[in-house]
Amino acid sequence: MTTNFYAPPSSIRGKRITLPEEEARHARSVLRAEPGEEIVVVDGEGGWYRVTIDHITTDRLVGTVQESREEVGEPDVDVTVALGMLTKRSRFETFVEKAVELGVRRIVPLLAHHSETDTLRGDRIRRVMIAALKQCRRSRLPSLAEPQSLDQLLQESTAGYRLLCHNDPTAEPVLDVLNDPSDEVLALVGPEGGFSSAEIESALAANCTLVSLGNRRLRAETAGLSILNAVTLRSEARHVKATSAE
Amino acid sequence: MTTNFYAPPSSIRGKRITLPEEEARHARSVLRAEPGEEIVVVDGEGGWYRVTIDHITTDRLVGTVQESREEVGEPDVDVTVALGMLTKRSRFETFVEKAVELGVRRIVPLLAHHSETDTLRGDRIRRVMIAALKQCRRSRLPSLAEPQSLDQLLQESTAGYRLLCHNDPTAEPVLDVLNDPSDEVLALVGPEGGFSSAEIESALAANCTLVSLGNRRLRAETAGLSILNAVTLRSEARHVKATSAE
Repeated sequence: MTTNFYAPPSSIRGKRITLPEEEARHARSVLRAEPGEEIVVVDGEGGWYRVTIDHITTDRLVGTVQESREEVGEPDVDVTVALGMLTKRSRFETFVEKAVELGVRRIVPLLAHHSETDTLRGDRIRRVMIAALKQCRRSRLPSLAEPQSLDQLLQESTAGYRLLCHNDPTAEPVLDVLNDPSDEVLALVGPEGGFSSAEIESALAANCTLVSLGNRRLRAETAGLSILNAVTLRSEARHVKATSAE
Repeated sequence: MTTNFYAPPSSIRGKRITLPEEEARHARSVLRAEPGEEIVVVDGEGGWYRVTIDHITTDRLVGTVQESREEVGEPDVDVTVALGMLTKRSRFETFVEKAVELGVRRIVPLLAHHSETDTLRGDRIRRVMIAALKQCRRSRLPSLAEPQSLDQLLQESTAGYRLLCHNDPTAEPVLDVLNDPSDEVLALVGPEGGFSSAEIESALAANCTLVSLGNRRLRAETAGLSILNAVTLRSEARHVKATSAE
């Protein structure tokens, strides 16, 4: 099987796993899985299980855990990306799919001053997230926060590293800013029209650093993916260096 | 005007610019441009022009160049991304749009061993590229090569830096590999099924380095964007460091 299956922690009792109906149906009808075969199941909370199928029908799959691991496919760094709500929902969904692949831990839809919409199709986004989780073989399902304002987010965030993407001569190249390690990063990206100057002032007052992603004007969802990618790639490179220096 | 206009070099004679019909129509019908207004025009070959509108009708816009610059919005590094041909054309088009934003110089559709298609909608892709060029305000239109095999590309490429994305324990984190500067980079990304072992052997024989983009399995188009982003962000950070060290 090339794709993982998803089953929330409540589906797992000791060594016995019962897949959700939809997942069982996919295993049976699409992948033609048979008893005795091995599958990989992730629970969305960091649990990873190698499982043999004991019993399978059209809508039911029961298996036995042969091996379990934790945090498979998870980056070391805990990254929240807050992205301004976008008018085109398909662009927000493209962002969500790729953000899951690139290792995001939490997505916050921002009700920014220049956001032109305030609604999300939460159920649809959750389906996109689960499909990406399975496809990219990570074990932790990122969380999707309720839409909120930048001020609200800045007040509640515990991240030591706070980066705001901004096309401004004073902004520093993101990889220069990421030279120091950090366990928790908050990355802020405005909607199509960018952040308002009041929002940028609030962010600076809340210890955000203005970062640049290059000398082109990126679409909002591209900027969100670019900064997320910079943070996770930087944390992996650092990690390798730290290990090899021991 | 928030979006640039595109006119190939043949549209520009001395200080006089005549926009292509389609661009003139957009300026007039959608943006309601009037004589005397200023627009920015890029020629797709690195030329950037601030232009005042002299004359505008439904399908004709003639203007005078007030200021010209070169290479606006272009990264220092010359990156080619070769991406395995994908079964889903929409995924290839998403890649193309965001690759233009992220600073790619040349896109090569790879006829890889595991590619399940060998056709592209070239005209459609070209439209996506021009729209992204205008939107992200760069001045150079990336080129789109004819589909070709990995061997063909490796023989013809002049890039000193050759990176192949591969999920393998021997692969190095991409940002560790990119520590040295380089002016020309070739980044290779397989199709949905990855590269074959024969392709990986050819690449190693042609001085490619295997690089890792983290411990998740990325979709092909996501991997292409991730490595491109790493290369251009790395080159900007390096550039800034080199400048501040003088």
